[in-house]
Amino acid sequence: MQQRLAARPAGPVRAILWGLVGLLLVGGWHQVVHAASRLVDLTYSFDETTLVWPRNPPFHRDGSQRGGTADEAWYATGQVALSEHAGTHMDAPIHFAQGQVGIDGIPVEHLMGPAVVIDVRAAAGKEEDYRLAPADLHRWEAQYGTIPNGAVVMMLTGWGAHWQHRERYFGSATPDAPTTLHFPGFSEEAARFLVTERHISGIGIDTPSIDYGPSQDFVVHRIVNGAGLYGLENVARLDELPASGATLIALPMKIAGGSGAPVRILGILPE
Amino acid sequence: MQQRLAARPAGPVRAILWGLVGLLLVGGWHQVVHAASRLVDLTYSFDETTLVWPRNPPFHRDGSQRGGTADEAWYATGQVALSEHAGTHMDAPIHFAQGQVGIDGIPVEHLMGPAVVIDVRAAAGKEEDYRLAPADLHRWEAQYGTIPNGAVVMMLTGWGAHWQHRERYFGSATPDAPTTLHFPGFSEEAARFLVTERHISGIGIDTPSIDYGPSQDFVVHRIVNGAGLYGLENVARLDELPASGATLIALPMKIAGGSGAPVRILGILPE
Repeated sequence: MQQRLAARPAGPVRAILWGLVGLLLVGGWHQVVHAASRLVDLTYSFDETTLVWPRNPPFHRDGSQRGGTADEAWYATGQVALSEHAGTHMDAPIHFAQGQVGIDGIPVEHLMGPAVVIDVRAAAGKEEDYRLAPADLHRWEAQYGTIPNGAVVMMLTGWGAHWQHRERYFGSATPDAPTTLHFPGFSEEAARFLVTERHISGIGIDTPSIDYGPSQDFVVHRIVNGAGLYGLENVARLDELPASGATLIALPMKIAGGSGAPVRILGILPE
Repeated sequence: MQQRLAARPAGPVRAILWGLVGLLLVGGWHQVVHAASRLVDLTYSFDETTLVWPRNPPFHRDGSQRGGTADEAWYATGQVALSEHAGTHMDAPIHFAQGQVGIDGIPVEHLMGPAVVIDVRAAAGKEEDYRLAPADLHRWEAQYGTIPNGAVVMMLTGWGAHWQHRERYFGSATPDAPTTLHFPGFSEEAARFLVTERHISGIGIDTPSIDYGPSQDFVVHRIVNGAGLYGLENVARLDELPASGATLIALPMKIAGGSGAPVRILGILPE
């Protein structure tokens, strides 16, 4: 079952570059300008309604503008304040693993890779506390092949449909109480399989946490962060990615020693 | 001289995808894992020493951690506050152009493209208020061909060497006084040429501003933002990009209506 490769995880990046080199050799960007492609922005905008983990401070922006008249030219500026775990964000290895790197220390090669999308919407629709099992990973591999080196493994639960409804998204009438939450996440066994049997770059999910709602030990965070890998949470529009064949680019704000950061995530799709 | 193409500016993205499609067709990521490539992180880390535009609030982080003992598991978290124009950041079209989009409204297709690096280090080394002229662009095009559609045009001044020295970087003994600054930037004429005669996605520079230090009218900002395009400022390690042939990916934090945002910028280079 296991297919370890000697190759470095920078593979996906090399693949992209290899394609670019080929294109430039045959005549530059212009040649392929009509080739089929589509980008998906897997990121929610940050505003005052952005959901954050219970008891974390809300996102806040102070914007100002002036001018736009005959006497004075237009000028707009602003400043923001936010938790490192608000909205669409990346958890750094140091978040749940002492001695691991902060968000600025994640190797840039891990910030892009093949998107592996595990669709558990049917199971999660029946059981809000569903946990992605190794069997879900094996089922994906039976159809699409071994999870490739450098992959970002995304769990598609369908929770993105609830983003605008805080109680529904957190699965609780009291979403400020972290012991009352219900939503799907990864299982301990699946996390352990991914970090020991495959060479992934990180995992991600369209819920508030890679650990399911009732978790109090955050074991999936501990396994993934303990392996020096990241988690992506509150990922938007995950249902617009195919199960296999897309490339994910997830670039976090470079906060020195950050436990996490807001991240901009793009998916590159074939048409 | 002018080579307008009917193609859409999404060209570079399509080029990347086209390469990926080809790779997947010939057997997936594994095939090219040994192909030559290198990533450069063109972003400064955010910490309390991060340089910001005069009179803007400094970057601030409140971090906390606990546990890491036999009795209590490790947990680290944090929150940040910053100007939308601190450190390595992207100026949104709305910054200096009324009615243009905020940072979240920039088409994602513009966030990656061919990196065109105009090296003016020799001229800027002699004249700290040097402005990149149309002649500098023509010189680049004579050597590397017409600036490609979707390009991000980067001005390499060498100012990155001064990043750790605020007075030197801003060219002033009183960097809090915005009328005393000296550093290189784009000229009005070069900015106008780029937005009217070429199909670029944005411009960038390794100084505090795309307008040179003495500017009080910020005409380059007004031209670029007025054309719906973005500027990248305080770009790091720009001297590690080749003049032509690299791909730039610049993903800003998605602040609703933001006048700008912290941005993570990667360069993908051939070896």
